[in-house]
Amino acid sequence: MARVYNFSAGPAMLPEAVLERARTEMLDWQGSGMSVMEMSHRGKEFMSIATRAEADLRELMAIPANYKVLFLQGGASSQFAMVPMNLLGAAGRADYVNTGAWSKKAIAEARRYGTVNIAASSEAEKFNTVPAFDAWQLDSGAAYVHYTPNETIGGVEFHWVPDTGTVPLVADMSSTILSRPVDVSRYGIIYAGAQKNIGPAGLTVVIVREDLLAEPLAGTPTMFDYRTHADNESMYNTPPTYGWYLAGLVFEWIKDLGGLEAMGAINQRKAGKLYAAIDGSDFYANPVDPACRSWMNVPFTLANPELDATFLSEAKSEGLVTLKGHRSVGGMRASIYNAMPEEGVDALVAFMAEFERKHG
Amino acid sequence: MARVYNFSAGPAMLPEAVLERARTEMLDWQGSGMSVMEMSHRGKEFMSIATRAEADLRELMAIPANYKVLFLQGGASSQFAMVPMNLLGAAGRADYVNTGAWSKKAIAEARRYGTVNIAASSEAEKFNTVPAFDAWQLDSGAAYVHYTPNETIGGVEFHWVPDTGTVPLVADMSSTILSRPVDVSRYGIIYAGAQKNIGPAGLTVVIVREDLLAEPLAGTPTMFDYRTHADNESMYNTPPTYGWYLAGLVFEWIKDLGGLEAMGAINQRKAGKLYAAIDGSDFYANPVDPACRSWMNVPFTLANPELDATFLSEAKSEGLVTLKGHRSVGGMRASIYNAMPEEGVDALVAFMAEFERKHG
Repeated sequence: MARVYNFSAGPAMLPEAVLERARTEMLDWQGSGMSVMEMSHRGKEFMSIATRAEADLRELMAIPANYKVLFLQGGASSQFAMVPMNLLGAAGRADYVNTGAWSKKAIAEARRYGTVNIAASSEAEKFNTVPAFDAWQLDSGAAYVHYTPNETIGGVEFHWVPDTGTVPLVADMSSTILSRPVDVSRYGIIYAGAQKNIGPAGLTVVIVREDLLAEPLAGTPTMFDYRTHADNESMYNTPPTYGWYLAGLVFEWIKDLGGLEAMGAINQRKAGKLYAAIDGSDFYANPVDPACRSWMNVPFTLANPELDATFLSEAKSEGLVTLKGHRSVGGMRASIYNAMPEEGVDALVAFMAEFERKHG
Repeated sequence: MARVYNFSAGPAMLPEAVLERARTEMLDWQGSGMSVMEMSHRGKEFMSIATRAEADLRELMAIPANYKVLFLQGGASSQFAMVPMNLLGAAGRADYVNTGAWSKKAIAEARRYGTVNIAASSEAEKFNTVPAFDAWQLDSGAAYVHYTPNETIGGVEFHWVPDTGTVPLVADMSSTILSRPVDVSRYGIIYAGAQKNIGPAGLTVVIVREDLLAEPLAGTPTMFDYRTHADNESMYNTPPTYGWYLAGLVFEWIKDLGGLEAMGAINQRKAGKLYAAIDGSDFYANPVDPACRSWMNVPFTLANPELDATFLSEAKSEGLVTLKGHRSVGGMRASIYNAMPEEGVDALVAFMAEFERKHG
């Protein structure tokens, strides 16, 4: 089969140029006689790959020098515990913003380690918007404020950064990191599972301001102590070397495209086309407040849900796959991360119009 | 450069046939139009890969039905905490056997969660042997007994399985799993980082007897609770999908070779040739008790350490790389895991003889 347009929410498409490079280098990375997978993580070949990847990410995101960049394992689900275990400290309490399924998971895990204050929630609005900042009930004594800039399931995204003053802001950016420029200095910690915009599953990137590296709660596993990794350049133990390498190839690909300004413009255009197709039809609908629609995850429903299966099967025969919505939402979801080509969105939009013409 | 013989202790060589298959399937796995890296972990394509890999591992190791097989992240270093957090329970104490660097790391982490009794140690023998079983001071009230069947740095290996009666036996098999047949029923838990004999770094395989799945210590992160993963077929969160796929290719490769009996015979022969070369010369030496020399990691020294750098550079020019010994031991170390071809060992033995002739 030819390559498909894969709208999976993650793991998700990777840039074809990255996969081609990985294929070319699979048995012999740049004359080393080895696959990157076979390299000692402490050898000079892998060290050069690791160093280059971090430098490129720092350049892309303009990460200030007083932040560490960690390449870890365990996914955002591990960060849900690592953040409170490392940051709650003497305060023992933190503010969380609840904007959907992933916020809730972060909140549930944090509650096991301290007091969680729900500073704001859009649950009453069925998570179809984000809470206006002037209504947030922030606690100036909180150890940190946690939020989820993009909710992968609901398709809701913050297009602004909350100002939490001196209280560190912590963001689960798994599904939006690298999609546009971000002012890292506004954050205490940014974390992201790689499998949407960074690389393959099994790698987690954490960007942490150095002054937040401190003694964690008693009983925190050594591997869950940020200092373990910050003090050892993410090589306390064997890191996920192949994922780190692929992430580096993705960073190079974004740089070649023109960096995050260019990436953001492409993403905004792609999302704009898809939302326009949905809004321009009575056959398709998206329930999210237009001011906070995600550029990355676009859920939509058909006027007649009995056509869902037909939609999915006809789309698949056109090479448009993994469009089924999350089981908690139903309908469809098109995840259009960085690596989804604009042509893929164009093809989906054309297919949707044709499907409506035939079945609408 | 042609492919080299890479004697790295891990990440280490992978079978060339596995890398070739991964290369072929990189942009399109079996007509799916996607790389395995791009697949949703919950889609039918990846589910078939995951299921097949587990079934093949169960077949290879003859894993009884009352054991769960988990495909996790975090490496053996995470297991050093997960084991005590999940198993210490009411007993609050466990027996550990200290045979070297990796045992010590496991012991240090376990001490943070309960009482550790050192049931046996070979530290007085500089870790050049393993403690005879009749001298072990086992505690019948221990929650479990932990040992390290193969010490990657010292090159010391147990060629027998301790009989701990009804106390569950826990083994860090990172550097020896799949190297020969093993009677899984003798163990409560077997765990292994993938990057030696299973696949790429970033995947950890845990084989756990179901009756040991129980409430962990208070404060255990959800991701460190074995039940989280056992109850969700290792898909509570996004697993390291590409590593899981590659592990499956390695399992197929071992099956094609004839399984673990055949693998064990090859490994014993490879190790035998290398130890014979060392023992047959006054120029090379290995300090380990012959009864417990590792089949996987073979440290050796030159009679004149001033020749170490020359040895490494001449070896490299022959395509024999990553032979430098661990900094704590010095000299050389040849790790000859499953994927090191017998021809690689033959080439090393021939090089060693020639080097001795020139420089000895």
